Amino acid sequence: MTQPERRYVITFGCPDRTGIVARIAQFLADAGGWIVEAAYHTDPDTSWFFTRQEVLASSLPYGVEELRARFAEIAVELGGEGKVADTGEPRRIVLLVSKEGHCVYDLLGRVASGELEVEVSAVIGNHNDLAAVTEGHGIPFHHVPFPREDKQAAFAEVRSLVARHDPHAIVLAKFMQILPTELCREWTGRALNIHHSFLPSFVGAKPYHQAYQRGVKLVGATCHYVTAELDAGPIVEQDVIRVGHGDSIRDMVRKGRDIEKVVLARGLRWHLENRVLVHGNKTVVF
Amino acid sequence: MTQPERRYVITFGCPDRTGIVARIAQFLADAGGWIVEAAYHTDPDTSWFFTRQEVLASSLPYGVEELRARFAEIAVELGGEGKVADTGEPRRIVLLVSKEGHCVYDLLGRVASGELEVEVSAVIGNHNDLAAVTEGHGIPFHHVPFPREDKQAAFAEVRSLVARHDPHAIVLAKFMQILPTELCREWTGRALNIHHSFLPSFVGAKPYHQAYQRGVKLVGATCHYVTAELDAGPIVEQDVIRVGHGDSIRDMVRKGRDIEKVVLARGLRWHLENRVLVHGNKTVVF
Amino acid sequence: MTQPERRYVITFGCPDRTGIVARIAQFLADAGGWIVEAAYHTDPDTSWFFTRQEVLASSLPYGVEELRARFAEIAVELGGEGKVADTGEPRRIVLLVSKEGHCVYDLLGRVASGELEVEVSAVIGNHNDLAAVTEGHGIPFHHVPFPREDKQAAFAEVRSLVARHDPHAIVLAKFMQILPTELCREWTGRALNIHHSFLPSFVGAKPYHQAYQRGVKLVGATCHYVTAELDAGPIVEQDVIRVGHGDSIRDMVRKGRDIEKVVLARGLRWHLENRVLVHGNKTVVF
Amino acid sequence: MTQPERRYVITFGCPDRTGIVARIAQFLADAGGWIVEAAYHTDPDTSWFFTRQEVLASSLPYGVEELRARFAEIAVELGGEGKVADTGEPRRIVLLVSKEGHCVYDLLGRVASGELEVEVSAVIGNHNDLAAVTEGHGIPFHHVPFPREDKQAAFAEVRSLVARHDPHAIVLAKFMQILPTELCREWTGRALNIHHSFLPSFVGAKPYHQAYQRGVKLVGATCHYVTAELDAGPIVEQDVIRVGHGDSIRDMVRKGRDIEKVVLARGLRWHLENRVLVHGNKTVVF
Repeated sequence: MTQPERRYVITFGCPDRTGIVARIAQFLADAGGWIVEAAYHTDPDTSWFFTRQEVLASSLPYGVEELRARFAEIAVELGGEGKVADTGEPRRIVLLVSKEGHCVYDLLGRVASGELEVEVSAVIGNHNDLAAVTEGHGIPFHHVPFPREDKQAAFAEVRSLVARHDPHAIVLAKFMQILPTELCREWTGRALNIHHSFLPSFVGAKPYHQAYQRGVKLVGATCHYVTAELDAGPIVEQDVIRVGHGDSIRDMVRKGRDIEKVVLARGLRWHLENRVLVHGNKTVVF
Repeated sequence: MTQPERRYVITFGCPDRTGIVARIAQFLADAGGWIVEAAYHTDPDTSWFFTRQEVLASSLPYGVEELRARFAEIAVELGGEGKVADTGEPRRIVLLVSKEGHCVYDLLGRVASGELEVEVSAVIGNHNDLAAVTEGHGIPFHHVPFPREDKQAAFAEVRSLVARHDPHAIVLAKFMQILPTELCREWTGRALNIHHSFLPSFVGAKPYHQAYQRGVKLVGATCHYVTAELDAGPIVEQDVIRVGHGDSIRDMVRKGRDIEKVVLARGLRWHLENRVLVHGNKTVVF
Repeated sequence: MTQPERRYVITFGCPDRTGIVARIAQFLADAGGWIVEAAYHTDPDTSWFFTRQEVLASSLPYGVEELRARFAEIAVELGGEGKVADTGEPRRIVLLVSKEGHCVYDLLGRVASGELEVEVSAVIGNHNDLAAVTEGHGIPFHHVPFPREDKQAAFAEVRSLVARHDPHAIVLAKFMQILPTELCREWTGRALNIHHSFLPSFVGAKPYHQAYQRGVKLVGATCHYVTAELDAGPIVEQDVIRVGHGDSIRDMVRKGRDIEKVVLARGLRWHLENRVLVHGNKTVVF
Repeated sequence: MTQPERRYVITFGCPDRTGIVARIAQFLADAGGWIVEAAYHTDPDTSWFFTRQEVLASSLPYGVEELRARFAEIAVELGGEGKVADTGEPRRIVLLVSKEGHCVYDLLGRVASGELEVEVSAVIGNHNDLAAVTEGHGIPFHHVPFPREDKQAAFAEVRSLVARHDPHAIVLAKFMQILPTELCREWTGRALNIHHSFLPSFVGAKPYHQAYQRGVKLVGATCHYVTAELDAGPIVEQDVIRVGHGDSIRDMVRKGRDIEKVVLARGLRWHLENRVLVHGNKTVVF
């Protein structure tokens, strides 16, 4: 299958009023821009307008920097803020992991099979259980131990390792460590976590155990942006799977993993494709 | 399509040990009993054994009363407790409703089309919005107003109306009134509620509003037995439906209703078929 | 919950080129039109562009007839064809039924509970099993018998009854009669059928029997536009439900009905909201 | 999490009559056998009875060979045929692959994370694209080229490589080669294939292209036993995922892969746990 053509992806938000679509569309039409995908939404509570547009790079007479400069003027004019991404620019992610491998194996498999077009710059683990398979994929693995008595130094090292790669996403793929507030802030809008419950059910530790005790008939998973408040960040994607009285906690964990993997993979894909616009504590996913 | 043949349905629970299945199976085999469906489960936490067995009525040389008497001896012997239901005995339900009609329309439609084999003895409403359609189905409708200042008398009337029919299930089909503790107790194991969220998410009032505020990507419904603690009874069935940023609360309510209807209908069917065994605050659904 | 405000819904298709979105958006902006929902799509095989836009009626300085006239000019200019619907104009449907009631009960219940805003002008049945409940909802029921030896006269009567109401949709709610080609043509784009399989699996008669024989693990339903070729029209919506070895054909029919009901209800809603654009034998559902 | 205790798994089928359950249960009870999971089913068309029972190994006074010998007598007595598996005996699989890696990456990840307790004895590919990752997992990879003009020799080599490991399952993980009839026969009941459509829809080549042309709203995958008739063997598991007009064939392939992976993984797990009983062209999955 051939790759899709190179595109520029405009994402933008501003207070709603008439004429926004016309303004942006005319701007693109004037330059001969060929829109191949477009989406709009207005939040009824806040009257905030959102849009995402994909334009064929080859249809414009100028490059991405020029488009960024020109679109910035439109954004100012409309009183909003936007961004222009270029699908021709390579994208990078860093994975933070612990001992559980299912999400990492899944993501590395998706990258290896060309399904997720991204470079995994590094995998950082507080244990080194996942070093071998990571390196088997030709990806550097950094082991950063997290001693109970001094996590601060460990987080500083993680921060510095991440910063070195300036990744488009930091993926907490079952990292099992609670990020300090300053790191949540620094990585705002780039750090994605996979939580093993259908949030806001079973916030906190051992959600499968909580689900088992409550006797629920479905277990789920949630991919969300990391914020300073634990498990409370903007939700990007969720899904569930059926469980029954015959399922032990062990079975629920196993079934839940299949959901964790697809929910994280979908959330990450959408993030990398600039499909997720955050507004307050909610997301618009175009 | 022909009706399934008349069956006796044995449900039983006791402390687990070896030989229980053999004891019950031998008891049935000795009488020539033809088992057409059988299920077993042992709860690993409490070591409680559960079983449900369907036997063709025509295969036994005696009637249901004799079977009940004989099985009662086995139950004592095994230190457990059981029940024998007869699919030839007509089953009755009473519906408690308010103004919202979707669950009632759905249940009455299922009964009218022969899909749910049960007699709806009465529909009781604290408003009379649903009287016309109920009576159009040839079913008595009782309007019991619930004045804010004296709900006690109203509940007493509901209780007495329900008692008159001695129903196999009291279905709170969007009743919107919180049952007093004594009624919860009296109706233990027979009162089914449909809650418009994926419990334990969004306990209490206005779950769709809560879901909308949290920005979840799925909304759900839960059918559970009513207990004195609000929205905390044993869960019989749950399901979810996908929602997105484009869905208003009004849309979420509408989509959620499709899930409420099927979740309630499934839960009620399983209850009437004696498939639901309650143990502590959890259910086994065979 | 308050009703959504009155809107004009523009649907339009034309050969893709740059500037279409700008042209339409500018046209609306010039008149002060407030777009509350907009969607675009280009079919990559045929390079056909599709759009659907909802504009607040109150934001335009003129009425729907003027909008239709003005938009017709744009349509000509862009070499395409479009339509302007007005959510303030009442919408009508006619249901064609036979003996099976589940879809009819479901649709009438949705209308009665205000969930589906449409007037059911008439229900026409080749049997009169569903007359009582239909009339209980205050809706006229026409019994048109279909004798084996002369279906032509019966179809002529159905055609004339339908024509009398000029409905926005003719819903074959388990009608079980194959429409003659000329009726398929006359009702093109307005006749919706619900087929009890996941098409193209199990085309033709007794799909649940076919599914049972093949031992599939899911059964489904398909809502599609009626065309002269049986079960081959453009698909509007599909869904499936899980079945297992313990399910008899009777059980599969019952479970399948829950899917038939929601698939038909969703398809009909989208059709009435002008969300479905047909192109060749496929649909775009905005 | 601790491993479940060692168990003996009895699977058995015979013509239905009264007393079968009692006979087997009494046999186990006499030996002190502790049943931890049991399931029964009778096929209504053929009156064939099926059962699967898990017994704690430690509860029996003898080993698996003795149990096999003793149960064989019961099987003869009841005129049926059965099997006794031992969860303590290591299980082996061989994977047949081509160029597409998603199913292989997924299965190897599940094995590496301890989710699927099986030894992957070998991966055999008609291309060697997947050699590196396979060997990165410490598993031998055999490259067997399939020249167009002489596939017979290649199949003979595959056959001999497989025979060397005597695996419990031969998994065609996107193998893309049609097995010769004699190999289908030799591997009867052990060869599992993953087909990228919801069979019987879109039998044969390029199912996603067929699905795209037909405009379906869901795409699926089917795990089935391989038989001499292409894509027609007994179905073990199926599932679907939603697609829409915005999805290109490329998108449908990508989304479908997520379903292929879980459907194959579930089917394989059930096969290895002796949960799948084949009868004619259908399966009972306990």
